Amino acid sequence: MSSSIPAQLVFAPGQSVADIDTSATPGFSGAKADAAPVQAERSARLTELQEMLYASHKAADDTRSVLLVLQGMDAAGKGGIVKHVVGAVNPMGVRYTSFGKPTEEELAHDYLWRIRKALPPAGHIGVFDRSHYEDVLIVRVHNLVAPEVWGARYDEINAFERELVDSGVRLVKVAMFISLDEQKRQLLERLDDPTKYWKYNPGDIDERLEWPKYQEAYQAVLDRTSTDYAPWHVVPCDKRWYSRLAVTELLIQALESLDLSWPAADFDVEAERKRLLDA
Amino acid sequence: MSSSIPAQLVFAPGQSVADIDTSATPGFSGAKADAAPVQAERSARLTELQEMLYASHKAADDTRSVLLVLQGMDAAGKGGIVKHVVGAVNPMGVRYTSFGKPTEEELAHDYLWRIRKALPPAGHIGVFDRSHYEDVLIVRVHNLVAPEVWGARYDEINAFERELVDSGVRLVKVAMFISLDEQKRQLLERLDDPTKYWKYNPGDIDERLEWPKYQEAYQAVLDRTSTDYAPWHVVPCDKRWYSRLAVTELLIQALESLDLSWPAADFDVEAERKRLLDA
Repeated sequence: MSSSIPAQLVFAPGQSVADIDTSATPGFSGAKADAAPVQAERSARLTELQEMLYASHKAADDTRSVLLVLQGMDAAGKGGIVKHVVGAVNPMGVRYTSFGKPTEEELAHDYLWRIRKALPPAGHIGVFDRSHYEDVLIVRVHNLVAPEVWGARYDEINAFERELVDSGVRLVKVAMFISLDEQKRQLLERLDDPTKYWKYNPGDIDERLEWPKYQEAYQAVLDRTSTDYAPWHVVPCDKRWYSRLAVTELLIQALESLDLSWPAADFDVEAERKRLLDA
Repeated sequence: MSSSIPAQLVFAPGQSVADIDTSATPGFSGAKADAAPVQAERSARLTELQEMLYASHKAADDTRSVLLVLQGMDAAGKGGIVKHVVGAVNPMGVRYTSFGKPTEEELAHDYLWRIRKALPPAGHIGVFDRSHYEDVLIVRVHNLVAPEVWGARYDEINAFERELVDSGVRLVKVAMFISLDEQKRQLLERLDDPTKYWKYNPGDIDERLEWPKYQEAYQAVLDRTSTDYAPWHVVPCDKRWYSRLAVTELLIQALESLDLSWPAADFDVEAERKRLLDA
C-alpha cells in the first residue's frame, strides 16, 4: 500500500514559503486519532524496509544508502521526528548527526567537510538534524560570510548532492514549517515544564525575530536546490502527528524506490542445515 | 523502584563459565508473559534517564557518559539487545558501533585505536557490539597475534578502562551466554527463514566448534578484567525476553548511579516568558 502523502509534499517551482498552510495535512484526510493506527502500521513497514536495506548491504554488497535531511526553525519538531520516526527503526542501521555551531576544527575546513564525514555508510539510513543548508540559512541571515561566498553555495550544494545521488545515496530532504503562533506555543511549553528547560535557549527568540529574513533564505533554498535528483519536501508541522506520519511516508517511499528484497542465500541451505545438525 | 537483577549478574571471583546456567533468570521469578509489562515500564524509565543524561550535558555541561559493551558468541542475541533495548531510547543520545574484522587502516594502528575513536561523547550512551575484548577472544582462539601480545592486553585493557572511568565514562560490561543447544536452534532458525539468510554465516559453525577454546578465553576475560570500577555482568541468554530485561536493568542501574536530575534553568523563566509573549 502506498500513500499519497509524499507526492503532495514535493516542492513545486514557484511555490511561496509565505503561503504554506502550516496546519494542513496534505494527503491525509483524517484527524489525530485516525493517524495513530496508521503511524503504527507504517512504522512497522519502515522498520522492515530498513532491515532489508541493511541486509542487502551485509549479504549482497548493495552499496546504497538513504540520507534524511531535516531542516526547520526552532521548535518545528526536528527532535520529535528523530525520537519517534527514526526511533522506530533499528539503531544498528541508523547514523544520526546533529550539526550545531561549527567547531574551530570544522571552521578550519570547507563547510562540506563535516558533512562528508557524517555521510551514512552503505546499507544505513543517515539522519542529518540540520545540515549543509545551515550554510545558506543561518549563515546568510547573520552575514557570517560574505554574500559572494554563501551565494556560490547553492550551486556547490547541487553539485555535491548530484555526486551523492550518483554514488548511491537516496536523499530525502525535508523542510519543516510551523506558524509563528505554534512556535510560540511550543516555546512556552518549554518554559512551563521544568523537565523541558534544557530545550529552551533564549537565543531562539532572537532567531524568531529574524523570521522574515529566514523566510527569504528558505525560499532561496527551495527555489535553487530543489532538483529532480534531490527534491525538497515541504512539510507542514503545526500538527506534530501529521509531520511524523509525513516523514515516515517519505522514508518509506525512498526505500521502496530502491526495489529492495531479502538477499538470497550465498551458501547451500540444505548443506548448512546438515552441517549444523551434526556440529 | 530498583530491580534485584543487576546485583545477581555481577561476575563473582572464581565463578566458572562452564557452570553458567544459561536458561536461568536471576532476579526475576516470573515467566515470559510476566516480563512483558515489566519490560515496557522499565524501557520507559530507561528512556527518561537517557534524556536526563543528554539534558545534563546539553544544559549543565555534565561530561559523563555511559558505555554498554556487549560480548557474546554468535546468536547470543546481541542484535536483539540493540534492536529492542537500545532501540527503545532516543537515537539522538545513542552512539552505536559494531566492531567486525579490523580494516587495513585499523590493523595499522594499536588495537585500541578504533575503540577510542568510537567512545561516546558526553551525555550519550555508547553501545559497542563486540569490542576491544575481541582482541583477547577471537584473537586468542585463532592465534592472530603472538601469545605474549594478547597476554599483555588484559592489563592494558584494565588500564584503559580505568582511564575511561576516571574521565566520567560509566562502563556496563555484558557477557552474554547461551547453551550450544540454544545456539543451534537460533542458527537453524536463520536457515529456515529466507528473511534471515542474511544473518547466517557458515563461519559461525566453525566458531561454534571452537567453543571449548572460547570458553577458556571468556574465562580469562572475566577472571582478569572484572574490576571494581568496571565489573563484568554474566547474562544468561537462552531466554531472550530475560536477557533484554536484564540489560535494560543494567543500563538503568548505571544511569541511576549518576544521580541525574533535570537541569535548572540558566535563564530567568519569567523574564523569558514575558519576552516570548511580546515577540
